[in-house]
Formats: sequence, structure tokens, C-alpha cells
Amino acid sequence: MTDVASYYAGRRVLVTGGLGFIGSNLALRLAELGARVTVLDCLLPGQGGDLYNLHGAEGQIDVRIGDMRDAGLCRQLAEGQEVVFNLAARTSHVGSLQAPLDDLEMNCRAHLCLLEALRACSPGTRVVYTGSRSQYGRARYLPVDEEHPQCPTDINGVHKAAAEAYHLLYWRLYGLRATCLRLGNVYGPRMPVRDHRHGFVGWFVRLAIEGGTLRVYGDGSQKRDLVYVDDVVDALLLAGASPAAEGQVFNVGSGQPVAVGEVARLLVQAAGQGRVEMVPFPEEDASIEVGDFYADCRKIVSVLGWQARTGLAEGLQRTVEFFRQHRQHYLS
Amino acid sequence: MTDVASYYAGRRVLVTGGLGFIGSNLALRLAELGARVTVLDCLLPGQGGDLYNLHGAEGQIDVRIGDMRDAGLCRQLAEGQEVVFNLAARTSHVGSLQAPLDDLEMNCRAHLCLLEALRACSPGTRVVYTGSRSQYGRARYLPVDEEHPQCPTDINGVHKAAAEAYHLLYWRLYGLRATCLRLGNVYGPRMPVRDHRHGFVGWFVRLAIEGGTLRVYGDGSQKRDLVYVDDVVDALLLAGASPAAEGQVFNVGSGQPVAVGEVARLLVQAAGQGRVEMVPFPEEDASIEVGDFYADCRKIVSVLGWQARTGLAEGLQRTVEFFRQHRQHYLS
Repeated sequence: MTDVASYYAGRRVLVTGGLGFIGSNLALRLAELGARVTVLDCLLPGQGGDLYNLHGAEGQIDVRIGDMRDAGLCRQLAEGQEVVFNLAARTSHVGSLQAPLDDLEMNCRAHLCLLEALRACSPGTRVVYTGSRSQYGRARYLPVDEEHPQCPTDINGVHKAAAEAYHLLYWRLYGLRATCLRLGNVYGPRMPVRDHRHGFVGWFVRLAIEGGTLRVYGDGSQKRDLVYVDDVVDALLLAGASPAAEGQVFNVGSGQPVAVGEVARLLVQAAGQGRVEMVPFPEEDASIEVGDFYADCRKIVSVLGWQARTGLAEGLQRTVEFFRQHRQHYLS
Repeated sequence: MTDVASYYAGRRVLVTGGLGFIGSNLALRLAELGARVTVLDCLLPGQGGDLYNLHGAEGQIDVRIGDMRDAGLCRQLAEGQEVVFNLAARTSHVGSLQAPLDDLEMNCRAHLCLLEALRACSPGTRVVYTGSRSQYGRARYLPVDEEHPQCPTDINGVHKAAAEAYHLLYWRLYGLRATCLRLGNVYGPRMPVRDHRHGFVGWFVRLAIEGGTLRVYGDGSQKRDLVYVDDVVDALLLAGASPAAEGQVFNVGSGQPVAVGEVARLLVQAAGQGRVEMVPFPEEDASIEVGDFYADCRKIVSVLGWQARTGLAEGLQRTVEFFRQHRQHYLS
């Protein structure tokens, strides 16, 4: 297995979307490992990007606020990077139906701009792109492996799949050393908790901490694949450091399906407050609901030696503690 | 089987990309059937759109030169249409690698604009979208049916697949009555013959008529699925008229694989001039070459009763005759 710590020490690494939920957790870890980290983020309102996410590491990370659709900026940032973690994205599924053209801009155009810059300036760079389970749509079989057809149920999923395809094409056609991860429902510190548009977990975290009512749609039995952000950061670091990952697609999930109602129950337990209520599906959400989903993660286990290590109860506990500690910033 | 002729008589029909190769053949047929046809085309240089393609039907077809990315124009044109044939596209594979952002604009953004307009103004409209065999990439098995995975080998294929997914989503989410066809190598009158960027058949047609050398890449044994444009127009008309086609994807090909070298030989024979030469693959084309490809078309045969009727020798003969007759416009 690749020695990740020594691999990143002193290396030049770019994290796009690095002020967002997963990006900031990754950037903080990279800084700890001694990497020379640059973060690019456009701080798109309502998309999870937040300067406070790098709180405590000010001065250790080079933060650039800018738009990845700016070809000149991309070329400037691409130059000399050794590893690029390409995490910039709009992540809301419902939002992608309300504003499909905005989703296209950030989830397709921006990635083509970055890839064109890397092709021109830095074709040997390692690139890790984060796709999503939404690329698969409804599971035709469970658990869902990487060969499962991609039939997204919303515009966001279509664009995430297209951007993944770009990365794999630039690998095949131009030798850009790309790896694509398809992430399950990632949760943990710095996740978006301001509204329910970015997934139910963050919204439930907030409600539990505030002692509110966690409204579970349907009977709460629909299964999801929750994976703790520190485990996802491990997967990203391994993917960026492993030659065996080049040109590959990997599912990244816990491999442990959990019912949405159970997540709500565990959060109320972790917070010691709040209550769970079952309500019917709102129409807008029902239309893009995918039913049970959990991923087959045997490929990343066997090729990269990665495995989710954080149990759900523990991960939710740590998440609640983080947001309680930083309540004034994230919840006020 | 649907009575296509009586279905379209008097109906309001929009053809996007209607000055292009397939769009113009379709618009001419619709006008013959007595439909009230509007054509939208932006006459993008080098993309096959040509006012002369509607030569002979001037006054019978309402031609609008405009950009489908213009939301206001889309709303204006969408209003009151009964059937929309959405054929507007950039079609060059090599071109999509040279200008991926331009490909994104025309093959993704433009379609989202049209679909948003239809959703807002005309949600009951029948829409037929034309995708392409390039969505499949290299065939994992032959013949390729509609369930075959989509792994495009170029940016154009990625975007064609994304736009197809939009249409199917708008059907599922908003009830827009969409049908998607995946076309093989379409050939016939009005096809682009000015350069080799839009497929080898048109370029070979030109060379044969000019008595030039038809350079076949490799050993010429790679198989393609050529389908004559009149047969494709039949498929489009059936798709737009058949309730059974709504929400469906259909391959449209001849079902008769033919070697590229054989196409060249038949064209030289049809033209009575020109010669065939085998040459090694140029690097740029080799990188996106997909190997043998031919489609399994049993689904459209069984659901819509469509079948390609024009034999290859006959279709090529008619094509050569058309371009000889209109040589001054298309070949000078």
C-alpha cells in the first residue's frame, strides 16, 4: 500500500472546491501532511463553500477565490501542480432541476476549462475527480458496482457523469493521469447544514443540535450508503498517490447500508435531543428519489487497499460535536 | 402501424437544425406531407447548415435563422408546436476535441434551453431527439443494442449522451413526450461533403464525383452501419407520430454491417470514376476510432414497425446522382 504521508510531504497540490465540505477537509489534511496546498473556490452562494472551513489553518494554505471557467486562471493554477483534486461542483439535485443551466456551467464547463488547462500546461499531472452515486440513478441491483449502468434521475447526475467521462477521455486521449471516485452520501464536519437542498444528513444534524423535528420522508426504510468524510479523504489521498488508480473509476462508500430513519434515530441519540417524525414525500423530492442505494466497494478495497473505518454511530457523534463546537458560525 | 401521412398533414412542426443534412431532408418531406413546418438553424459555419438544402421548397417552410441558446427565441418557437424534431447539433468528433467548449454549447446548453422552453410553454409537445452511435463508443459486443453501455470515445459522444439523458429526464419528470433515436452513419443527398470532419462517407462521395483518390484508413475492413437518409426520415416521422415511442430510445441503422473499404469501392462504382487507396490511420483519428460498429435495430422494428428499405448500392447511387446534379452548389 502506498505510503500516503510521505507521498504528499512537500508536493504541490491543488484542491478545486477546496472551501467546500469535502475539499476543505482534504485541504486541511494535506496541509497537515506537509503538502504545498492551493485551494481554488468561487464561493458560489448557497453551495457550501465557506472560508471558515479552513479555520485554524490560515496561512498554511494558499486560497484563491476565482471561477474555474476562467481559462487564464486555470492555466495559471495548473502550471506545476503535481496532484489536482478536482472537487468543485454544484451538488444540489433539486437545485439542478430548478437551474439546469447553472448546473451545466459549474459541473461541465468549469471542468472542461480545467482539463484543457492541464492538457496544455501540465499534462503529467495526477487528477482525482469526485463523481457521485447520483450518476447511477435507481439501483437495478444491489450493491451497485462500477459496471452498473448510469441512468441519472436528475440533471446534476447527468452532468456529474459527463464530467467523469471528460476525465477518463483526457486520460485515454492525452495521457492525463486521472482517477474518478463515485462517492456515496458523505457526511461529517463542515458539511452543509443550512438547508435541506444538499442532502438529508446535514439538515438532520442541524435539526438534532437545535432540538428540532427530523422529518423522515416515507416510512424511513429507504437505504443509503453513508461514508464519513475522513474516510473519503483517505480514499482521495490514496487515489492521488497510487499509479494503479490511473484511468480507473472507484465506488467509495461504507458498504454498510443504513435506513434513513435509522440515521435520524442515531442523530437524535448522538445529540441527546430532537425527535423523529415520518411524513409523506414532497412531490419535488419524490420525482427524483432513487429508492435503496448502497455501493459495492470491493474494487477500491482490492486495488487501493482502502476501506471505510469509521462506524456510523461514531461518525455521527463526531459530526454533532464539531457543529456544536462551531455552532456560532455554522448554525446561527 | 401509424398512418404517418395523415398524422402530419396540417400539423405544426418545428425542426431544429433544419437546414442541416438530416433536418433539411426531414423538413422537405414534412412539407410534402402538408405539415406547417418551421425550421430553426443558426447556420454555424462548417456544420452542414445550408439554405440551399431547402432549394425547391422556398415559401413552403418558415425558416428562422437563430441560436437555440436564446431562451426568448426558444419560448417563441416552442409555443403551439405539436411535434419538435430536435436535430440541431455540432456533429464533428475530431472537432469536439479541438473545441470542446463549443461542442458543449451547441450539444448541451442549446438543448437545455429548448427543453426548458417546452417545459414552460408547451409541455404536451412530442419531441424527437437524434443521438448517435458515438454515444456507445467501442462496441463490447455486436450488434450493439440499446442496453449496451455508453462509453463515448470523444467529447461529442459525451455531450450527445448527456442531451439524450436530458430528453428522457424531461419526459420522466415533466411529462414532455420525448423519444430518442441513436443514428448510425447516415448518408444521402445534402450530407456534408466539403471536408472529412463530418464522416468518411460524404468525403468519399465528393472524391468519387471529382475522380479523386478515396483514402481508406487501415485495411478498410472496419465495419460500419450505413443508413440512407430517406429511411432515417421515415424513422423520425414514425417516432414523432407513435404514442408507443414516448420515453423510448431506439437504434436506427441498416442492421447490415459494411466494411469501409467496400463503401469506397461501391462509390467508385456508382460514380464510374475515382480510385481507392489504403493508407495508415492518422494519429488524431486513430485515437477516437471505435473499431467495428453495427446496431441491433430489432426494437424499432418491433415497436414502430420501421425498417431500413434502401440497399447500400442503391442509396450510394442516388447520393452520387444528387450531388452531380447540384454539383455547382455543393462541390464548387
